Amino acid sequence: MALRPEAVRDFSQDHRWLSINTATVRKQHGQDWPLLEILDACAARRIRAVSPWRDQVAVAGLAATAERLQTHGLTLSGYCRGGMFTYAAAAARQAARDDNRRALDEACMLKAPCLVLVVGGLPGALSGRAAHRDIAGARQQVSEGIAELLADARERGMPLAIEPLHPMYAADRSSINTLEQALDVCDVLDPARSGALGVAVDVYHVWWDPKLQQQIERAGPKRLLAFHVCDWLTPTTDLLNDRGMMGDGVIDIPRIRGWVEAQGYAGFSEVEIFSTHNWWQRDGCEVLDTCIERHRRWV
Amino acid sequence: MALRPEAVRDFSQDHRWLSINTATVRKQHGQDWPLLEILDACAARRIRAVSPWRDQVAVAGLAATAERLQTHGLTLSGYCRGGMFTYAAAAARQAARDDNRRALDEACMLKAPCLVLVVGGLPGALSGRAAHRDIAGARQQVSEGIAELLADARERGMPLAIEPLHPMYAADRSSINTLEQALDVCDVLDPARSGALGVAVDVYHVWWDPKLQQQIERAGPKRLLAFHVCDWLTPTTDLLNDRGMMGDGVIDIPRIRGWVEAQGYAGFSEVEIFSTHNWWQRDGCEVLDTCIERHRRWV
Repeated sequence: MALRPEAVRDFSQDHRWLSINTATVRKQHGQDWPLLEILDACAARRIRAVSPWRDQVAVAGLAATAERLQTHGLTLSGYCRGGMFTYAAAAARQAARDDNRRALDEACMLKAPCLVLVVGGLPGALSGRAAHRDIAGARQQVSEGIAELLADARERGMPLAIEPLHPMYAADRSSINTLEQALDVCDVLDPARSGALGVAVDVYHVWWDPKLQQQIERAGPKRLLAFHVCDWLTPTTDLLNDRGMMGDGVIDIPRIRGWVEAQGYAGFSEVEIFSTHNWWQRDGCEVLDTCIERHRRWV
Repeated sequence: MALRPEAVRDFSQDHRWLSINTATVRKQHGQDWPLLEILDACAARRIRAVSPWRDQVAVAGLAATAERLQTHGLTLSGYCRGGMFTYAAAAARQAARDDNRRALDEACMLKAPCLVLVVGGLPGALSGRAAHRDIAGARQQVSEGIAELLADARERGMPLAIEPLHPMYAADRSSINTLEQALDVCDVLDPARSGALGVAVDVYHVWWDPKLQQQIERAGPKRLLAFHVCDWLTPTTDLLNDRGMMGDGVIDIPRIRGWVEAQGYAGFSEVEIFSTHNWWQRDGCEVLDTCIERHRRWV
């Protein structure tokens, strides 16, 4: 079933382009796997890149994380995450601003290639109490928030990667829901397409989109800042935490990777799986080994 | 919070434009509520329209359903449903063809204004075993299937309404996932925009779409064949059967209705709620009464 256009890099022989988003192994058997141990386990498998989450870094310590990355020669494929720009009250706006500045600083300290942005949905919806129903207004706040952060990000030389989330997260997590929409924002805020603002393409969020190939071509090499993989299961039993391991679902990952690489993308393929009832119930080393095997065969 | 543009019909005084999709009250307290009793209960509340599902009609009997509709002076806002055009084997293709012809006949017999189409996803995915990962191929089969059915539908004078489903159903139920995509198919198969082929706009499926207003305007009066309402809950606990009652979620229904009516849509507002753990656990009459009240206030 897997299509491998000529242009696509051959992943079948090794895993040099594999990155592990550390949420994939964040809580095995219900217990947090400490970030520094995750880094050790990745390095032991000659995995070359990771994408850590801020809360994991906060627990491990920023300096200790940076040091361990350096010890292992591990690089980042991205830093998760900034964003959450939408607000109902001015105080929340300021808090988000401050938090995003800290995220930028951390991303710089960890030498991330980009800070990934999950932009926020309707304020309050994530805790089940949306402050309003005005998604157009939320989108306006998102654009303003990105514009502000972009000024600081440019100063630091840290690219921002807007990650469009699947439309099923429009209410509570991200009001940017298609690659086209993300690129519309990029066009407005960085018309020169400098690379300071781009997108993170996660196949889970965009695989269904009939305009996906067209919009990947529109993005072009400078704006394709990250490529995330996992799989869409049928059935999917939970909107957030039932992502599949590559090969277990219906996404034609090699085809999408072909489109991205045809634009010149030559970075890592980052595995990001949230899986309460399957992968988070297994030994973390088993999950990493599975990622390596599936990366060779199904990505 | 509700916006009521000038152009929008006033629903607050009565429920003359309310229709009940009979899936909304299909299995109260875990027991099937027979269709003919549903029709009686709707008529008793001066509800003027319904949209029945084929399986409910099959159990009640087509002739008996038609007779009961006539007795009560009930009209249809649509007939649910044809479609499921995708196939892995030729036999399945022929079976879908035959079944869609029967759906057309039934729609005519029941004097439906349109046959609603849920077009199908990857063949086999609905039962958890997708035959392949080629969603572009599935979409091609969908276009061919609609084209074929459209020829018969034109002969019978029965409009076909493509219902784009939320992208979270792309794998297993519908590979048409945005209004734009549905209209692209309409443009190709009915370039004259005759009204023989149009769309059903269900707010649950399209509310998140940043291009929604633009695409409703593109559809225009002849292609807006049905308007369905319910609400998006936060959190949503099930991908299929956790739809909310209007007013309980985050969709700005009046705003979307305003866009549809600004195009000249003057038909029913059809309530379609699948709700395993809430509305299907209540007395059917209570659900109907709630639909009436919420229709006045939140639609």
